[in-house]
Amino acid sequence: MAILENTQELENGNGVMTGYVNLIADEAKMADNDEGLKDKETESIEMVFKDTVIPSWKEQLTFRAFVVSLGLGVMFSFIVMKLSLTTGIIPSMNVAAGLLSFFFVKTWTKMLDQCGLLKRPFTRQENTVIQTCVGAASGIAFSGGFGSYLLGMSDVVAENSSDADSPYRSISTKNPSLGWMIGFLFIVSFIGLCSLVPLRKIMIIDFKLIYPSGTATAHLINSFHTPQGAKLAKKQVNALGKFFSFSFLWSFFQWFFASDDNECGFANFPTFGLKAKDKTFYFDFSTMYVGIGMICPYIINVSLLLGAILSWGIMWPIIENKRGSWYSKDLKPGNFHGLQGYKVFTAVAIILGDGLYNFVRILGKTGFTLYGQIKNKEAQTVLPVVDADGYTPDDTAPISFDDQRRTQVFMKDQIPTWLAVGGYVGIAAIATIVLPHIFKPLEWYYIIVIYIMAPALAFCNAYGCGLTDWSLASTYGKLGIFVIGAWAGASQGGVLAGLAACGVMMNIVSTAADLMQDFKTGYLTLASPRSMFASQVIGTAMGCVIAPCVFWIFKNAFPDIGKVGSEYPAPYALVYRNLANLGVEGFDALPKHCLSLCYGFFAAAILINLTRDIAPKKYAQFIPIPMAMAIPFYIGSYFAIDMCIGSLILFVWEKKNKAEATTFGPAVASGLICGEGLWSVPKAILALFKVGPPICMRFLSRRGNIKLDGFIATLSR
Amino acid sequence: MAILENTQELENGNGVMTGYVNLIADEAKMADNDEGLKDKETESIEMVFKDTVIPSWKEQLTFRAFVVSLGLGVMFSFIVMKLSLTTGIIPSMNVAAGLLSFFFVKTWTKMLDQCGLLKRPFTRQENTVIQTCVGAASGIAFSGGFGSYLLGMSDVVAENSSDADSPYRSISTKNPSLGWMIGFLFIVSFIGLCSLVPLRKIMIIDFKLIYPSGTATAHLINSFHTPQGAKLAKKQVNALGKFFSFSFLWSFFQWFFASDDNECGFANFPTFGLKAKDKTFYFDFSTMYVGIGMICPYIINVSLLLGAILSWGIMWPIIENKRGSWYSKDLKPGNFHGLQGYKVFTAVAIILGDGLYNFVRILGKTGFTLYGQIKNKEAQTVLPVVDADGYTPDDTAPISFDDQRRTQVFMKDQIPTWLAVGGYVGIAAIATIVLPHIFKPLEWYYIIVIYIMAPALAFCNAYGCGLTDWSLASTYGKLGIFVIGAWAGASQGGVLAGLAACGVMMNIVSTAADLMQDFKTGYLTLASPRSMFASQVIGTAMGCVIAPCVFWIFKNAFPDIGKVGSEYPAPYALVYRNLANLGVEGFDALPKHCLSLCYGFFAAAILINLTRDIAPKKYAQFIPIPMAMAIPFYIGSYFAIDMCIGSLILFVWEKKNKAEATTFGPAVASGLICGEGLWSVPKAILALFKVGPPICMRFLSRRGNIKLDGFIATLSR
Repeated sequence: MAILENTQELENGNGVMTGYVNLIADEAKMADNDEGLKDKETESIEMVFKDTVIPSWKEQLTFRAFVVSLGLGVMFSFIVMKLSLTTGIIPSMNVAAGLLSFFFVKTWTKMLDQCGLLKRPFTRQENTVIQTCVGAASGIAFSGGFGSYLLGMSDVVAENSSDADSPYRSISTKNPSLGWMIGFLFIVSFIGLCSLVPLRKIMIIDFKLIYPSGTATAHLINSFHTPQGAKLAKKQVNALGKFFSFSFLWSFFQWFFASDDNECGFANFPTFGLKAKDKTFYFDFSTMYVGIGMICPYIINVSLLLGAILSWGIMWPIIENKRGSWYSKDLKPGNFHGLQGYKVFTAVAIILGDGLYNFVRILGKTGFTLYGQIKNKEAQTVLPVVDADGYTPDDTAPISFDDQRRTQVFMKDQIPTWLAVGGYVGIAAIATIVLPHIFKPLEWYYIIVIYIMAPALAFCNAYGCGLTDWSLASTYGKLGIFVIGAWAGASQGGVLAGLAACGVMMNIVSTAADLMQDFKTGYLTLASPRSMFASQVIGTAMGCVIAPCVFWIFKNAFPDIGKVGSEYPAPYALVYRNLANLGVEGFDALPKHCLSLCYGFFAAAILINLTRDIAPKKYAQFIPIPMAMAIPFYIGSYFAIDMCIGSLILFVWEKKNKAEATTFGPAVASGLICGEGLWSVPKAILALFKVGPPICMRFLSRRGNIKLDGFIATLSR
Repeated sequence: MAILENTQELENGNGVMTGYVNLIADEAKMADNDEGLKDKETESIEMVFKDTVIPSWKEQLTFRAFVVSLGLGVMFSFIVMKLSLTTGIIPSMNVAAGLLSFFFVKTWTKMLDQCGLLKRPFTRQENTVIQTCVGAASGIAFSGGFGSYLLGMSDVVAENSSDADSPYRSISTKNPSLGWMIGFLFIVSFIGLCSLVPLRKIMIIDFKLIYPSGTATAHLINSFHTPQGAKLAKKQVNALGKFFSFSFLWSFFQWFFASDDNECGFANFPTFGLKAKDKTFYFDFSTMYVGIGMICPYIINVSLLLGAILSWGIMWPIIENKRGSWYSKDLKPGNFHGLQGYKVFTAVAIILGDGLYNFVRILGKTGFTLYGQIKNKEAQTVLPVVDADGYTPDDTAPISFDDQRRTQVFMKDQIPTWLAVGGYVGIAAIATIVLPHIFKPLEWYYIIVIYIMAPALAFCNAYGCGLTDWSLASTYGKLGIFVIGAWAGASQGGVLAGLAACGVMMNIVSTAADLMQDFKTGYLTLASPRSMFASQVIGTAMGCVIAPCVFWIFKNAFPDIGKVGSEYPAPYALVYRNLANLGVEGFDALPKHCLSLCYGFFAAAILINLTRDIAPKKYAQFIPIPMAMAIPFYIGSYFAIDMCIGSLILFVWEKKNKAEATTFGPAVASGLICGEGLWSVPKAILALFKVGPPICMRFLSRRGNIKLDGFIATLSR
């Protein structure tokens, strides 16, 4: 359940292309006898674009861009809505958005060009703006919770949940209605945008965070717009295209064999045997994660694997043995009273520990710098803190042309801090006043507490997403359910308060991570941060109207939405409501020793980070990153294995031909990521039309198979 | 059933390495900028060995070679016997024989060398001699029919067969006994060796037949013995080793997922969907067949595919629709009264048509040449007839160094024709006298007829095997069952006569193909034809004693052998006896129109061959080869698809880099073939110890899977 759910959370981002950063330096070292890199035209990506004019940030925000965004936003909202109301599994749409927007606008501008009417050429910056806007608009269809917390508030879902006969049911439900939904979304969706804007330089330029799938999208966009005549760039585009096609076709091929996502297909291939598969150790043949693994630094992938071994290999089997003593024997697998509780809350503890440590550290350093600035009365930029590997970057290292150019563009158009802070405080004030009117049990002081905590959590999520590509918005949402639900208590309508708090949390952390990712895409495509921000705001506004309207259309067309067994059962609505029912029981609801484990892991995460910072770099580089270790805790080990295979491929490639690996590695990785990313659109459309895969490739034990043989004889294929 | 059975029939052979033949010519054209072939040491395989002394044919037949052969022969006989008594599926052991013999003798000679006692170095010729001898010895365990026709004669099997209550049962059974089995094998096993010896030059040098898996074995042996310092050869050996390991490991990996050969694993992967799989159209991930496809000429693979489409795509579905009209509705899938009859007999008709056409053509041309020789009174070698593609080779083409050297060695040691003819006639005479004493119903004139027909059929089989790597010994054996069974009739003990005739036929055609394959291995490793022949004779003699003794051990240890449901059910013994029961009913037993179809295909095969010969080469090269088209008729399409994929790989490779493909293609193909070949030994040993694969990867339709879900819930994995 949790594993499935988290497929929603893989979102695109954009990050520093570590590969390209070192390109020029490495090219100097390149052996001349290497055929693939022999030509003298070897150049960095921005060298290729150096003759292309960058439009001003206002010029990047064209009318046609928003027309296309609106169209694609509506289309993707329908897809996302349908999926969240049926299976609850939602793919990332960013790659598709980038690709389709290129296709539409390019066709349009070509047509105009042939008629001699073209005034403004289609640039990669404009492409990025559309991609950002569509992502923001369709993101609301997910973070708006129409298949989860929002629908979980309704009477229909409450009927089937564990509080169906609760005396407080009347104060714990709120049925969806177009008006309050739009209002609610407008209040909660913009605050995330404000929360992290001032930190963008730290996260993107100083931290050099990766945002793997976002980096891949940026690559794709760059490759579309590569000017004619750049030889090496053409080769890179070729490599990207080749692996893009491979990844797309492979995902397509896989689809045929997965008539049931839980049991069938390559995604359930017990590569290391059935027992290892039971412990989620298997290679699931996802080219996307292999590509992400190729972009992420080795230490991230190793940390993921270590975390997977620690949790699924050691801790969960031990805790499972305590079944009956630490927690009840009769619980279903996904119940938070049991093993699932340990999985989620220990992971959350580590993520919070790691995230807060870094947040406090930045605050401290920023404060220190500001103090220095005021004292010295001279303009000084914020000091670089740590890079993606977690180290203070070597200041003596030469800065590449790409880095220089990108940083220059990125720093040119500033977004004033007063706008962000003012916006945040203003929206928080409105929310504090309005939200308690929408949700009676949600007291105004809960909201203030949430808004005080939110920036730190938003930072945690954006930071984690930058490191590992996982945006854990729904996890933070669940945290909101528990904390606020427990605080309010069942008798005060805590269930509804918890679900509403979940919505507030999810929107903040989800949009914060999205924004930072889009800043990275912008960084890599030389789009202005201002136009990115504006595009996000416009896209979010679109989404706040589109998503509820689309939901309303579904609701009117199929009044059964949310009913178990109906065409649109919205399975996660029930899950979230049951979570809220658990939450109102408070911390006592957690299984035995779970809280102590959480404290331990929280402390360990801070300690490990401290050690990483204090230890000399020679040793520190081998210390794993707690945030990365925590993610497999409840998602499973399979994606860590995929990513480590990506690392392994890159490692072998680098051993064989370092220059080639550095030049083509990111292109290959981007192709792998984007190909599978694009396939999710036709897959979703097939699902919309109820076309399922024809075959189930299923894995049975030998004994199971022998038993089945008799049964199968009675079935017609 | 038939499909399974035919796994036995894939035997190793040895053939002209078309790749290497053109090596020198192509290397002249090689672009210098090609990194892989830049060094100046580019050379043909025999150039590498040019300083290695070739021992005389008597020196090749060392004592140690036969000691090792005896050991390995006993070991493989046990493996083959066990498998034929349990599942009936027998892998080819040639690769393993070549590899293990190298390992044993090399270790032995190294030890001696270090003690300073080594008198004679280990040569590739000696290696080939061992491989040939082991192949011949363990081959008898298969062609001796202990799991098929021989055991099918016994009372135990008759009890479960369709003639259990026949009044003629007493004259139609013969229980196994050590004495007559050894005698029988000695009489029938050597005649195959004599039958084709005079044609060896035509088939190997003039026809340039391929014998793909035998070529691969020769490559492997050559690669073991490559002298130090040959740079390109080392690269080729590396390529071979790499793909050998890949193929071996891949087969190993596949094994884990195939707990049931009929339903599970990659060998049953419905690559093109379940409906296509039902019609045997799928890629079964066999690296062996892909490798074979890479060695076979394009026209062979295309012919196979055309045959597959014609039969499984068009004809069988049409005939299946006539079920109830052309044949009874109630027949089981493998019954020869039904569809299976059409499959086998039309294929046999084509194979006979093609084979006989070529046989007659050679006889004619040979006669014509002899006539010319006598007339001109000058020594003249037999004219080249056709090459593997079916054409008269271009005489103006330059002959490569490899070809020259190999032909020279191959032609040096002649085997006198009088020995072959005398041996044949002598053994035939003995058989005609002795066999009717062993099998009462087998009249002396049946035997004479068989021995008159046999050389032509042996030629057909050796020719087909050379083209496509399939030795169809059991098919010819079934032909014997039908023809002699029908002739004798049930009342005259036709069942026993048919089974005995099957044994005679199978032994002749099987050893004939084996011999020709080994001649090819010898040709490619510069082993003398004389030592090959001697090794075959010695190996066959070993097998004639070893195989019955091994069977006798099994029989005494497990008296239940042949009983349905026992530990050693020997499934094919029953199949063969039931076939014989069908056979005695005569041609009336065939389903409707089957005989007419056979006549038609027989004529078509001759006509197509005639067209190929008459048409100008420009067009003729696109005319498919009937023999190749016929093989998928009853075996299925899957291996044709594998082989076409091999072709496709080679085709793309040649388009991208012709020189590299020509130089490394055969090495890669040999690695692929031999790796899977070697895996069959550990696999068989695992089966001996009853260690089965743990997992079943099964393919179900979506509906089937949904139905199963409920059932599976009740099962523990």
